[in-house]
Amino acid sequence: MESTTTSSLEHLLPQNFKDDIKAWLKEDIPSFDYGGYVVGDDVKIASLLGKTPGVLAGVPFFNELFRQLNCRVDWFLKEGEFFQPVKEVARVHGKARNILLGERTALNIIARCSGIATRAKRCNDLKKKHGFHGVIAGTRKTTPGFRLVEKYGMLVGGADTHRVDLSSMVMLKDNHIWSQGSITQAVNRARAVSGFSLKVEVECRTESEADEAILAGANVIMLDNMQGEGLKTVAK
Amino acid sequence: MESTTTSSLEHLLPQNFKDDIKAWLKEDIPSFDYGGYVVGDDVKIASLLGKTPGVLAGVPFFNELFRQLNCRVDWFLKEGEFFQPVKEVARVHGKARNILLGERTALNIIARCSGIATRAKRCNDLKKKHGFHGVIAGTRKTTPGFRLVEKYGMLVGGADTHRVDLSSMVMLKDNHIWSQGSITQAVNRARAVSGFSLKVEVECRTESEADEAILAGANVIMLDNMQGEGLKTVAK
Amino acid sequence: MESTTTSSLEHLLPQNFKDDIKAWLKEDIPSFDYGGYVVGDDVKIASLLGKTPGVLAGVPFFNELFRQLNCRVDWFLKEGEFFQPVKEVARVHGKARNILLGERTALNIIARCSGIATRAKRCNDLKKKHGFHGVIAGTRKTTPGFRLVEKYGMLVGGADTHRVDLSSMVMLKDNHIWSQGSITQAVNRARAVSGFSLKVEVECRTESEADEAILAGANVIMLDNMQGEGLKTVAK
Amino acid sequence: MESTTTSSLEHLLPQNFKDDIKAWLKEDIPSFDYGGYVVGDDVKIASLLGKTPGVLAGVPFFNELFRQLNCRVDWFLKEGEFFQPVKEVARVHGKARNILLGERTALNIIARCSGIATRAKRCNDLKKKHGFHGVIAGTRKTTPGFRLVEKYGMLVGGADTHRVDLSSMVMLKDNHIWSQGSITQAVNRARAVSGFSLKVEVECRTESEADEAILAGANVIMLDNMQGEGLKTVAK
Amino acid sequence: MESTTTSSLEHLLPQNFKDDIKAWLKEDIPSFDYGGYVVGDDVKIASLLGKTPGVLAGVPFFNELFRQLNCRVDWFLKEGEFFQPVKEVARVHGKARNILLGERTALNIIARCSGIATRAKRCNDLKKKHGFHGVIAGTRKTTPGFRLVEKYGMLVGGADTHRVDLSSMVMLKDNHIWSQGSITQAVNRARAVSGFSLKVEVECRTESEADEAILAGANVIMLDNMQGEGLKTVAK
Amino acid sequence: MESTTTSSLEHLLPQNFKDDIKAWLKEDIPSFDYGGYVVGDDVKIASLLGKTPGVLAGVPFFNELFRQLNCRVDWFLKEGEFFQPVKEVARVHGKARNILLGERTALNIIARCSGIATRAKRCNDLKKKHGFHGVIAGTRKTTPGFRLVEKYGMLVGGADTHRVDLSSMVMLKDNHIWSQGSITQAVNRARAVSGFSLKVEVECRTESEADEAILAGANVIMLDNMQGEGLKTVAK
Repeated sequence: MESTTTSSLEHLLPQNFKDDIKAWLKEDIPSFDYGGYVVGDDVKIASLLGKTPGVLAGVPFFNELFRQLNCRVDWFLKEGEFFQPVKEVARVHGKARNILLGERTALNIIARCSGIATRAKRCNDLKKKHGFHGVIAGTRKTTPGFRLVEKYGMLVGGADTHRVDLSSMVMLKDNHIWSQGSITQAVNRARAVSGFSLKVEVECRTESEADEAILAGANVIMLDNMQGEGLKTVAK
Repeated sequence: MESTTTSSLEHLLPQNFKDDIKAWLKEDIPSFDYGGYVVGDDVKIASLLGKTPGVLAGVPFFNELFRQLNCRVDWFLKEGEFFQPVKEVARVHGKARNILLGERTALNIIARCSGIATRAKRCNDLKKKHGFHGVIAGTRKTTPGFRLVEKYGMLVGGADTHRVDLSSMVMLKDNHIWSQGSITQAVNRARAVSGFSLKVEVECRTESEADEAILAGANVIMLDNMQGEGLKTVAK
Repeated sequence: MESTTTSSLEHLLPQNFKDDIKAWLKEDIPSFDYGGYVVGDDVKIASLLGKTPGVLAGVPFFNELFRQLNCRVDWFLKEGEFFQPVKEVARVHGKARNILLGERTALNIIARCSGIATRAKRCNDLKKKHGFHGVIAGTRKTTPGFRLVEKYGMLVGGADTHRVDLSSMVMLKDNHIWSQGSITQAVNRARAVSGFSLKVEVECRTESEADEAILAGANVIMLDNMQGEGLKTVAK
Repeated sequence: MESTTTSSLEHLLPQNFKDDIKAWLKEDIPSFDYGGYVVGDDVKIASLLGKTPGVLAGVPFFNELFRQLNCRVDWFLKEGEFFQPVKEVARVHGKARNILLGERTALNIIARCSGIATRAKRCNDLKKKHGFHGVIAGTRKTTPGFRLVEKYGMLVGGADTHRVDLSSMVMLKDNHIWSQGSITQAVNRARAVSGFSLKVEVECRTESEADEAILAGANVIMLDNMQGEGLKTVAK
Repeated sequence: MESTTTSSLEHLLPQNFKDDIKAWLKEDIPSFDYGGYVVGDDVKIASLLGKTPGVLAGVPFFNELFRQLNCRVDWFLKEGEFFQPVKEVARVHGKARNILLGERTALNIIARCSGIATRAKRCNDLKKKHGFHGVIAGTRKTTPGFRLVEKYGMLVGGADTHRVDLSSMVMLKDNHIWSQGSITQAVNRARAVSGFSLKVEVECRTESEADEAILAGANVIMLDNMQGEGLKTVAK
Repeated sequence: MESTTTSSLEHLLPQNFKDDIKAWLKEDIPSFDYGGYVVGDDVKIASLLGKTPGVLAGVPFFNELFRQLNCRVDWFLKEGEFFQPVKEVARVHGKARNILLGERTALNIIARCSGIATRAKRCNDLKKKHGFHGVIAGTRKTTPGFRLVEKYGMLVGGADTHRVDLSSMVMLKDNHIWSQGSITQAVNRARAVSGFSLKVEVECRTESEADEAILAGANVIMLDNMQGEGLKTVAK
């Protein structure tokens, strides 16, 4: 994976993540914000502190959340940068009640996103250290409703997202193959509806299965549960 | 494109198309259904007639719409079958007010979907007649909010959907390439975030551009605005 | 239909069309915008070209879509103006990734809306040419979820929208009448719930039916499937 | 207003009122239902008692709410019937926790709806007693988000709904007229976009204004703030 | 209840009330705004008049509604102030069509909210006059979907909101107690899931029941249907 | 915390969690389900295996997800039971395509929920082992949009949920207190709007602060950052 200027990863984000953030704020305040009433609207500054070593990830989500609350965020670190604790990562300027209203949700987002980026980077570092010539990729084992943030964190940490959802790549496993009788027939059937736009990945347990899949036109082979030297594993 | 048992195309549909149908019914009755009050709830049978030659498409949408209205649909034709007018295509059984409440929206769906399938089949027939060895594919030039039905109609008619949305395939055109300086750099940049799961398609105007794109790892070359014998689309 | 200063037709639009546009953009980018990442955020200018003769329609939708993407649109033509190709209709200024993100959906909206306006104008021109003293009106045969744009296009092209949905006018057809025994009873029943605020339209096949409907208090008579000189047809 | 078999007024309701009810239940339980946990799921029967004289209204909303909670409702009174307290109006059968979960919202709906129907009936009774030959009609002064229930209650009580929303009738008041210079010009402008499908109502303060409005093609004249014997509303 | 600077009650409101207002505007204009077309977009000023004596309540909702319509509101009264009619309460500045588009919904909100605040204040005034040492509190008998505005109105008028929804306090009534065998067991069961964060209120009919509830750890006792001098009633 | 029959914890869940599940399924299939097309609709049985020791949690979410997909789930373990690997926890019966469509999301839900319950139980076991007389409670540090499942998992594992959101308990920290001048004033201000229905928790750093808070009427004292033997949390 090419080294990316991580700050530009924000360009990947669709418009509608802003509505997700609105819904997340609503989850935390279904009716009244009693604390907000107590604290009032004097203008304050809050610091975001990094307390364990890690990779910063989730800047555009954090920014948008506080933008909705009319607060401004100043950053002392770039998306994707590694930091040692205790590091002041950012400062949020705004009305006290707005800062507190967004605080918990904003931290929940950026902590999870940075955690994933940090773990991804660690895997990548291990890979380089051991001279492994593959790609570290994620899975669809993400928190329901929160996949966009988690996949984004993988990218910031330097991991491949692998397929983002069932509609953006076809993956054929045991069940798909058995239901069609053979790898060849399963790949043909997948190609009939996915056409030339999507990749088809086939999970194979033996070299001969992989050969059949390649001949059938599969684009990616996943070698799962294989004994031996398994060099071709591309994913998972 | 392999010949598909078209009735099984329904297996492609996600759960959430049911909510689209709910929203479409709401569009037609924002407050009261005065006609429904007049006609009452005697049980009636309504016939769906095919009045021009064409391919039937959209059966699962039609079924779901009337299921939401507690009506039953009996079909005399299969999804994807060609019919000559006047053909009784289906019968809807249910309370008079429910049939009339869904009638217009149901017809709007199935008429558009069948129209697209019919046009797709015609293109495919022409292709076969002239011995052309390519694939007929659709575009993203679909009605906003209605793409699922329209892409589904393409599949029923035997056309390739091409990419369904901006997230399921990367397509690089003039603007993308110029912004990066070269085809190679644009492909590299796309690959950095899309990884090994998505195909990258590059629009090329000359054979040497196509060569560069292929070397850079593009999966699909689109030959646009080319003079000469150029095959329109080459799927890899 | 009185000639309207078409630009003021925008005053007809409700606030919530903005949310429709948000949903349409989401349809095109369910997860990541890979192309947007490639192209980045240099400021660019894009031209909207009219390539076939027609009536421009859909300006407020196009403007709002690009407003959501922080782009500015400059127009060289007014809503409702007729143009000859190739005409530069507008220029969009903004970040490259935002222009491309909205491009396809914006074109899909304005192309359909202008197409409908163009067709409506053609019908009106024919009407005038032949000295016909009626009104050209649309139907509810619109694309599900997209009716507001399509009805708006009819207005821009000079057509009457006829009833917009089942809640804004009562139309009584065969089924409604049969279920009540007579036109008179059907009209009475409709009037019982629609009161004095809505018009009641009755579909009639003979002059005596029309007489009965008028006596019963119908506001509009639709003469459908009539033989002869049928001059009174008001709608459909 | 013709006497209606009020139970059939349910036929007026659109499908989407079911989603309103879902949202209202959510308003009452944003996270956990602690009381429901205490009471458990033994099957119970709850009685709906009418404690003040009134007209029952809102049956379909009450039924749908408890249907969503897997409870059954048996009624001892018909929609629109008048009752003297204390009257057992209905019984709800279901799991204790489901009955309690829906109880408050169900009562809030049926109490408001019945209250409006009762008030509407009282106005109608007064009208008859005094031999007044007009129509009692409602306004758009309804609770935001709850209009469908309130307008339905008016119908059950025998009142005319008048216009349901800004899209289903055109009403021209002072401001509309002044902005156009005259009643005639305002009516013409309204007709230009509403066509022949909608009624146009004009608020007039003098008889000559009413004359002008009628000549301009207004369908309904509202005589407001008039001195003298003026009938309040004249439906045409 | 401490006297509150009522204008700061706005700090209690969550972000998402803005989306409620959007939905309420949509309820009033499902498709076209014909009146808006007639009146156009000349800039106008509209006055909000208080025509009966009362407490002003609902300012933040009124402000937000007109903010969405690009209008500005100037106030001559503070939230919670009592006024004598006829009082000019506020002026709305904006385009004529936007003022009229929001007028009805804005009035519906502020009239209901002020009405509730006025009634709450009247109860509080009576309480003080008679030297009663309790608290006037509201119920959950609010209009479905409109609770936030109504509970807010109670606060402006000086009433306690009591529990806002089923998730923010546990209230145990007859049914809960019977299902568990005793008050003690019902309170224990409620405490098992609500933990130390929520209060538990128990409805008691006798002093010995109240004693049992207090021993079991109940936080609030509601004395309902009691004979005698019933001094301890805390709520409703 | 009383030992709960964990299966009845399902009674805590609101109706609307069903819509969350619908949205989570949509996240995984924005357009077409290509794999579903390949595998078809033969009826199959899938096993849910527990591969690491843990507490099962999340049964009602898992059930509802597969109910939406017309599948049936048979359980071999109860909610809250501890299991040793490899344990067959449940079997899902249904059409192959429906099982695969829901598989990933269902596993993502139940794995996270069970993980939280397992961790909660471990804390509780440690507490008992060391004879600690307190309560293990959770925080609001949950994944945005997924709090209901995570708080539910805490309850299954025997932990107290602490406050679920900003609307269901008032917690006063440094910022709230400083803004009001003193603990007493902050508590008074909180009480002015939260009334007698909600608990007020105050974060204190010294014993004298705790004394002041208790006198002011705080219901819960949180002893944070204290030196010495201070019990972490004292529930009243």
